[in-house]
Amino acid sequence: MPPITLLSDFGQFYPSIMKGVILNINHHAAIVDITHSVQPQNIREGAFLLMCAAPYFPSGTVHIAVVDPGVGTSRRAIAVEARGHDRARGYGLINQYFVGPDNGILIPAARRTGEITVYAIDESDFPDASRTFHGRDIFAPVGALLSKGHAINELGTPVDDYKIIDFEMSLEEKRIRGEVIYIDSFGNIITSIPGSIVAERARFGSDLRVNGRTMRFLQTYGLAAGGEPLATIGSHQCLEIAMNRRSAAMFMRLSVGDRVEVVF
Amino acid sequence: MPPITLLSDFGQFYPSIMKGVILNINHHAAIVDITHSVQPQNIREGAFLLMCAAPYFPSGTVHIAVVDPGVGTSRRAIAVEARGHDRARGYGLINQYFVGPDNGILIPAARRTGEITVYAIDESDFPDASRTFHGRDIFAPVGALLSKGHAINELGTPVDDYKIIDFEMSLEEKRIRGEVIYIDSFGNIITSIPGSIVAERARFGSDLRVNGRTMRFLQTYGLAAGGEPLATIGSHQCLEIAMNRRSAAMFMRLSVGDRVEVVF
Amino acid sequence: MPPITLLSDFGQFYPSIMKGVILNINHHAAIVDITHSVQPQNIREGAFLLMCAAPYFPSGTVHIAVVDPGVGTSRRAIAVEARGHDRARGYGLINQYFVGPDNGILIPAARRTGEITVYAIDESDFPDASRTFHGRDIFAPVGALLSKGHAINELGTPVDDYKIIDFEMSLEEKRIRGEVIYIDSFGNIITSIPGSIVAERARFGSDLRVNGRTMRFLQTYGLAAGGEPLATIGSHQCLEIAMNRRSAAMFMRLSVGDRVEVVF
Repeated sequence: MPPITLLSDFGQFYPSIMKGVILNINHHAAIVDITHSVQPQNIREGAFLLMCAAPYFPSGTVHIAVVDPGVGTSRRAIAVEARGHDRARGYGLINQYFVGPDNGILIPAARRTGEITVYAIDESDFPDASRTFHGRDIFAPVGALLSKGHAINELGTPVDDYKIIDFEMSLEEKRIRGEVIYIDSFGNIITSIPGSIVAERARFGSDLRVNGRTMRFLQTYGLAAGGEPLATIGSHQCLEIAMNRRSAAMFMRLSVGDRVEVVF
Repeated sequence: MPPITLLSDFGQFYPSIMKGVILNINHHAAIVDITHSVQPQNIREGAFLLMCAAPYFPSGTVHIAVVDPGVGTSRRAIAVEARGHDRARGYGLINQYFVGPDNGILIPAARRTGEITVYAIDESDFPDASRTFHGRDIFAPVGALLSKGHAINELGTPVDDYKIIDFEMSLEEKRIRGEVIYIDSFGNIITSIPGSIVAERARFGSDLRVNGRTMRFLQTYGLAAGGEPLATIGSHQCLEIAMNRRSAAMFMRLSVGDRVEVVF
Repeated sequence: MPPITLLSDFGQFYPSIMKGVILNINHHAAIVDITHSVQPQNIREGAFLLMCAAPYFPSGTVHIAVVDPGVGTSRRAIAVEARGHDRARGYGLINQYFVGPDNGILIPAARRTGEITVYAIDESDFPDASRTFHGRDIFAPVGALLSKGHAINELGTPVDDYKIIDFEMSLEEKRIRGEVIYIDSFGNIITSIPGSIVAERARFGSDLRVNGRTMRFLQTYGLAAGGEPLATIGSHQCLEIAMNRRSAAMFMRLSVGDRVEVVF
């Protein structure tokens, strides 16, 4: 039975209630937390982390992602089927499901998996749903049903006008602009700039200017001296600004959403 | 096989040792963390969170809850059987077990499930138990045995003089007093005042005064303007003071245990 | 099927990717987080926590531990087989596996289990491994293969020159010196000094001097008055400095790595 993943900005407690609901419906569900520490209501950060993690999960996995400032308003609940190849890891044909609010959070992850079909969940099937916790009252039961093999097209109606999130950047010959997507627990700064685009323009060992500061472009953290900032291609396959054994976010004074400009 | 849940104020590391002990006894246990971030030694907060989460778990679930300032002193270890209906969710007849110290932490959750029988665990069955970590040495093995179908009445003796925690409030026609039970990771303030009692006295959209501050009583967070405080019935079914996209706890300067007074 | 444990300094997000990789290889893996909150790059803290937790897990458990400042440099990846008795808990003959970087983190835990054999993992089996996230690209797949019964000697070559971490102390008749290994979420100070050595030199109820401060040596926290510092034998079987309902680390101004001197 494929796993169910959970991602939210709920902190530690509320997801346990979603797990109780899931286990009531699917007694054998293997549930994996992706993270529940998304910055409160930061939909873009949630979308980015889900996009990075989802491809590593087996075919059939159901991902439930809830960063949902619009809960209880008119925003729709959606379930997405994605079919494709896992390009990043070569695990072959995969088929994954994504469940959450229609605010864009699911789309980058689903598109990275492959071709997507989006269904608006029929909320009249959940007449007792609260207006404050759809993670428990709609998304958890829908995810549990999908993990048991329930047909997605019985849960709702295909729609085309779903909300989209894109991780964009501007690209010139000698200059790339992107944004800070995520800062990890080491203080490494993960940007929206694909590492492959940087690698086409710079060799490992050469210098880059990042937000006006010169640093080496290196293959891994340990090649820099202690306290030396560096640019690398991180485990998300994105350009990452880091420091050996220190927080680059503190050093560069960068936060999620800030702009990043790389000059070659 | 029904799940085992864990709740404590232990932080991240110590619960893993309890899981090792459980898996030694029940190799197939599905273990769910409710939270391990209860404010250190705040038994009332632990009792409240367990009461909120337990009803969402399947019949047969064993809940192990350890907020235990009295560990190693003369306080007893108890196991509780609760039989009843899940009134909140309509899952039908349920039967759940609760294991932990006799300091009241288990009782509100067990009573919410239904009729309870409390057993004092026979600690002479655990001659090697430390005096500092009964979570590992007594509660985890007892919980694992119950999850395997071990009879609860072979683990101890029924007692009537167990400690009790109540979440009380004072109620007048135009005024309700309660307390702050929990502040979630968004800064939402969860109070001990049942939402149903507020809903009998005020319509959604009308104004309330909470601790001297006027705010709207709304169905969900997103109906308030950014930075506007609001009162709502949260996912715990209790009166909750919140702000759209900000921390109400910071704005209202309220902490766990503080008094809350609502005037209509 | 025996569990797989994970320990790292990765915070909450990255371990979920390791779990995805593991579940691709072993669909039935039961995965337990020991902790992902090790102080960034503090290999000694990781080694200590793994040593404390591992003996409580069943025979056959695979422990993956990644605190790895040297990732992507020339440091080797290793897998360790440990065979022995679980001396701490009397669970009989056990056989556990440990997977991670060759920087000493695995060795105290493996040695506590019993006789060890260390294999250098053949990294040419992982030609696509990144240079920044061996947790995902090498350690997770190796751990998943071991948990499915894959023979450890097909994954690498035995080596003798692996790195070692020891938790040492200096011992005189009236004086013991050790170090602070870990501070838990209560602010309790866990030292490298075995509790048994203290118990040979002092009776419970008598006074000790710890870093120049006099305190009682007690069997458990609750026997001290509120705000009174105490010495006890904690759940790690080590000398622990604690305060009833307060943070001893704040009171004693001690951090991980600081020296601790006990005078009788």
